[in-house]
Amino acid sequence: MQLKMDRDDLTGFMSDHFPQVAGDYSIEKVTKDVLSVRLHIFDRNLRPGGTVSGPSMFSLADVAIYLSVQSRIGPVALAVTTNCSIDFLSRPRADRDLIGEARLLKLGRSLAVGDVLVFSEGDGAPVARAALTYSIPPGTRRDPPAPVGQISL
Amino acid sequence: MQLKMDRDDLTGFMSDHFPQVAGDYSIEKVTKDVLSVRLHIFDRNLRPGGTVSGPSMFSLADVAIYLSVQSRIGPVALAVTTNCSIDFLSRPRADRDLIGEARLLKLGRSLAVGDVLVFSEGDGAPVARAALTYSIPPGTRRDPPAPVGQISL
Amino acid sequence: MQLKMDRDDLTGFMSDHFPQVAGDYSIEKVTKDVLSVRLHIFDRNLRPGGTVSGPSMFSLADVAIYLSVQSRIGPVALAVTTNCSIDFLSRPRADRDLIGEARLLKLGRSLAVGDVLVFSEGDGAPVARAALTYSIPPGTRRDPPAPVGQISL
Amino acid sequence: MQLKMDRDDLTGFMSDHFPQVAGDYSIEKVTKDVLSVRLHIFDRNLRPGGTVSGPSMFSLADVAIYLSVQSRIGPVALAVTTNCSIDFLSRPRADRDLIGEARLLKLGRSLAVGDVLVFSEGDGAPVARAALTYSIPPGTRRDPPAPVGQISL
Repeated sequence: MQLKMDRDDLTGFMSDHFPQVAGDYSIEKVTKDVLSVRLHIFDRNLRPGGTVSGPSMFSLADVAIYLSVQSRIGPVALAVTTNCSIDFLSRPRADRDLIGEARLLKLGRSLAVGDVLVFSEGDGAPVARAALTYSIPPGTRRDPPAPVGQISL
Repeated sequence: MQLKMDRDDLTGFMSDHFPQVAGDYSIEKVTKDVLSVRLHIFDRNLRPGGTVSGPSMFSLADVAIYLSVQSRIGPVALAVTTNCSIDFLSRPRADRDLIGEARLLKLGRSLAVGDVLVFSEGDGAPVARAALTYSIPPGTRRDPPAPVGQISL
Repeated sequence: MQLKMDRDDLTGFMSDHFPQVAGDYSIEKVTKDVLSVRLHIFDRNLRPGGTVSGPSMFSLADVAIYLSVQSRIGPVALAVTTNCSIDFLSRPRADRDLIGEARLLKLGRSLAVGDVLVFSEGDGAPVARAALTYSIPPGTRRDPPAPVGQISL
Repeated sequence: MQLKMDRDDLTGFMSDHFPQVAGDYSIEKVTKDVLSVRLHIFDRNLRPGGTVSGPSMFSLADVAIYLSVQSRIGPVALAVTTNCSIDFLSRPRADRDLIGEARLLKLGRSLAVGDVLVFSEGDGAPVARAALTYSIPPGTRRDPPAPVGQISL
């Protein structure tokens, strides 16, 4: 699957279309095999006990796969999340950003599926894994894109 | 499964242990069969296109099952979410609160599993369904409870 | 959602299109709210320790939702399973049939989603819960149906 | 995570404890990073349309993670599957064996979680992905192991 958008394209897309959350994320790496996104951890992401909230991990996984889909189909699609399964493996560290590494496993005409591993930056073992499915409605690959609702941005 | 905490108990538990988010939720109904929780929708829950964010639905589902577990095992357990599978079925309405209806399917010594349906208030068809698993560590049923990290509060 | 096929219609559909497994299942009840299917337990479904295999429960859940979709859209669709999340809650009894109770939560143009509870016959607590998603390809609602591949029949 | 059982150990374990299905599977590769298992495709695995059944893919995924857990904790544990989420990505070929590649993401005291990709032999794109959770009961790491019920063997 060839890339239609690189890191700069995707970063600009985030700023244009999701200004309310674009500052929370930095796109770290975009290749044909893996897309890596950083979630900057702020106080609002933290929870008692010195850890990061579950919804923060869910959101990062959702964003990472969403951007992986965008990188392949271009900036105009209106993909929405239809399913997510997520396992919380260990507690994230409160003093580290979270890194989501996404791999796209399927990009069909109407469905895309990807896997994500979420890490506390610098750790070798993941704190969460997730798989997400996106529905790509027929006929939506037109410019300009409508803002996406279900995606966790 | 008998109830060890009723609606007032659970509401007090939320205020005491999760003050940062307790105002977002109202516990509507607590019976042996179903526990119902309202997520008050604020601007921060909304997304372009007139809908509610995916993480908001995820958080409500997580809270609803968490409280269902608490209602059975009492206020002292340190349950953490280990798994969630969620299907997003249709777009929630931006002008309605979300209601989560949780049913506990298993309450074992170490694992609890429940199902949730999420509705835009007043609608008959759910906007999301989810199943969540909680791990109940052995020996943690002591007072006072430590704050819970993974739970989406 | 109105029913386009009742219990006799669905039973005939199974015999016609899935003769190799139709004898394993009996459709017990078909209403607008719930569809109930029995999996007859044979030696091949049993596992050491006096229980029923995981794939048997998975297959029953898959069949129950598949038939729920068929009951609404008629005998001609080519629906395929795209996703399943299943929780195994307790050991099924080896000396009882399994009963799957399916509820359809969404029937969209391209995706259908349903929940299933699986019981050892006569027990009040489920042995498994599952949610499944089916993809309904556009333009496939023509007669005669092609046999379905992915469905667990 | 060090290996306590290699390919020969695991193959012998299968023959001793799951004689009824051991012939269906061949363990191809066992390393610290990945465990690879082949499901030999017989007529009973096939479905109309020239493809392999969903339960066959589910069973292979289940076995691959189960063996990954065994390879780390040794032959004596009584692990049972508690959760599986699986995405069916494309139709497997009827004329090829299925290969399951499993990676263990967590091996805790009571829970193990792993990811699996399932391929039609020789193809680069997976036909399914799955994640499974196993419960490792406390105090069960004794010899000899009791036969495992829930695992799809």
